Amino acid sequence: MKIICSKSNLLYGVNIVSKAVPTRTTMAILECILIDASAGEIKLTANDMELGIETKIEGEIEERGIIALDAKVFSDIVRKLPDNEVVIETDSSFKTTITCEKAKFNIIGKSGEDFSYIPYIERNEEISISQFTLKEVIRQTIFSIADNDNNKLMTGELFEINENSLKVVSLDGHRISIRNIELKNNYEHKKVVVPGKTLQEISKILPGNADEDVSMYLSDNHIVFEFGNTTVVSRLIEGEYFKIEQMLSSDYETKVKINKRELLDCIDRATLLVKEGDKKPIIMNITDDKMELKINSFIGSMNEEIDITKDGKDILIGFNPKFFIDALRVIDEEEVTLYMVNPKAPCFIRDENETFIYLILPVNFNATAN
Amino acid sequence: MKIICSKSNLLYGVNIVSKAVPTRTTMAILECILIDASAGEIKLTANDMELGIETKIEGEIEERGIIALDAKVFSDIVRKLPDNEVVIETDSSFKTTITCEKAKFNIIGKSGEDFSYIPYIERNEEISISQFTLKEVIRQTIFSIADNDNNKLMTGELFEINENSLKVVSLDGHRISIRNIELKNNYEHKKVVVPGKTLQEISKILPGNADEDVSMYLSDNHIVFEFGNTTVVSRLIEGEYFKIEQMLSSDYETKVKINKRELLDCIDRATLLVKEGDKKPIIMNITDDKMELKINSFIGSMNEEIDITKDGKDILIGFNPKFFIDALRVIDEEEVTLYMVNPKAPCFIRDENETFIYLILPVNFNATAN
Repeated sequence: MKIICSKSNLLYGVNIVSKAVPTRTTMAILECILIDASAGEIKLTANDMELGIETKIEGEIEERGIIALDAKVFSDIVRKLPDNEVVIETDSSFKTTITCEKAKFNIIGKSGEDFSYIPYIERNEEISISQFTLKEVIRQTIFSIADNDNNKLMTGELFEINENSLKVVSLDGHRISIRNIELKNNYEHKKVVVPGKTLQEISKILPGNADEDVSMYLSDNHIVFEFGNTTVVSRLIEGEYFKIEQMLSSDYETKVKINKRELLDCIDRATLLVKEGDKKPIIMNITDDKMELKINSFIGSMNEEIDITKDGKDILIGFNPKFFIDALRVIDEEEVTLYMVNPKAPCFIRDENETFIYLILPVNFNATAN
Repeated sequence: MKIICSKSNLLYGVNIVSKAVPTRTTMAILECILIDASAGEIKLTANDMELGIETKIEGEIEERGIIALDAKVFSDIVRKLPDNEVVIETDSSFKTTITCEKAKFNIIGKSGEDFSYIPYIERNEEISISQFTLKEVIRQTIFSIADNDNNKLMTGELFEINENSLKVVSLDGHRISIRNIELKNNYEHKKVVVPGKTLQEISKILPGNADEDVSMYLSDNHIVFEFGNTTVVSRLIEGEYFKIEQMLSSDYETKVKINKRELLDCIDRATLLVKEGDKKPIIMNITDDKMELKINSFIGSMNEEIDITKDGKDILIGFNPKFFIDALRVIDEEEVTLYMVNPKAPCFIRDENETFIYLILPVNFNATAN
């Protein structure tokens, strides 16, 4: 194989596919990036068997061929090359020479034959969504997937399509994040659970342009994302996702409108007093026109008041401050509305059209001690 | 005690003195920042018994007093306060209230009486140097102090004053870095070894203005740096520093002029192939008009050529690439000159006036294997 391409094109492609290189594996071939120039175009591929990414880069093929190169070594080399044309040449014993200006690297590759290609998925119905929207939806929900594997379904996100709406849901047993998106077209009803890792990597490599789309395709076991020259294929998580409808309710006893920045900054300050692993709740004492926030730990105590607009009853309720911070950070609105029923029932943060719903369970606390 | 000052002034002061808070200590009082408002000005102090930093901040004293507050908790709180006036108030049981806008923190401080004040050092001769120059001199030498305590003197830097010149030297057994600075005045001959940690912290807190000076004072056991509202007092390292004069020589057999950026980038690329802890040398093959660089490791090999101007003999010589990278990174000149005698003698990188001299020992290598 002999190919010639610019350092910047090569680096761009390498950075994209690197996201599917496993950090730990016993199969050395999975730690490679495949360069496939056997069919008239230059394709880079990486595949950790759950997630596969393939991207085409521009360049010239002087001799067709295929080679697998250690991803870490290859991407380190590409990153440090001068900004000029790069020539990659291999021989029959997989010896690979990478030349750029006067710099010449020799490394040993592996046979492309041994590489696990990403599976071919039949493209049925194409679901279109703007790159920007998909990236935003992931950012606004990914934080509440479970951080351990105890329940596999909690490590993924529900993608549910109903006519022209896409609902994305994540939950970890203490909170639920929901985003509802309007799609440009109508589709058949579909419900899949996409691994959190896939979504995290997708959101890193998605350029996020508002006027360019991602095409999604669903099969029984896979989801495919296509954008630009890049194709991402991921396994789905098997099983029936949690029935969340029964946990949602629009009844409330207390409704609070509050400035998002003030609330976020205040809870952020309060967490100073909480060491990692220590489960100190932040107590909200909501009365007419104001919310008093308090936290008490062995380091010290803090209290602060924020002006609010309240409908309904007064309430004294405690939360894990991290859950509030996570949700408030991804909400773009200046003012948010909280809905509460009683100190043991979930609090909802949602907008009027329910484009987002964040459900947070309260925590018990000893009211007299605080 | 009751003081009022702006968050920004307070944060600025806290950030400066925090550099002298020890990361590990068995004495809880050393983990504190002392706020001393007992004498008509607000002084912050931290002291790890080797290095003490004191800075004055602007503010209003409503009630004189003194308190020691846990540095980590206090600086975290200050950092997250709104950008407004901060009131710090203590009572006789060291309960401390920090108030800013509607936020109110309560923490427990310690008696200022228990705090180890930084020692008072008699100010004899004042040595003046611009902040910018001191910061630069540290940056250009600090990388070659020893990274372990086996030889205490190697963990510091020699500051030697001779009439109107300051010589700063660091060495670790494999290399020597020397900077010679011209001072504005003439001084008595003095020779001290300043701990590397002190210099690292000084260079972090020095604003580095070219038109503002640092005043240095030397006593038998201490060095004092004064700039702006800040005083830094550090112990010196005891003992006689290494006699470096006998290691320096201006004889050479080979003199090479080379573009610094090209040489640095090339060695930087070569180190890709060297895993941490692996001691692969970079081999320089210097012939007329060109330097060929080669490295060989179990990952692969690299070679590259750079155009040079050479005086004297051809030479084939090997180096630890890191030592070359460290020195080249801090040299501001576009072109550098290397002086070599033979493959077993040190290489010197220096400018004509010897404002900087970097001595690097070569390493043995098997010429046939490379």
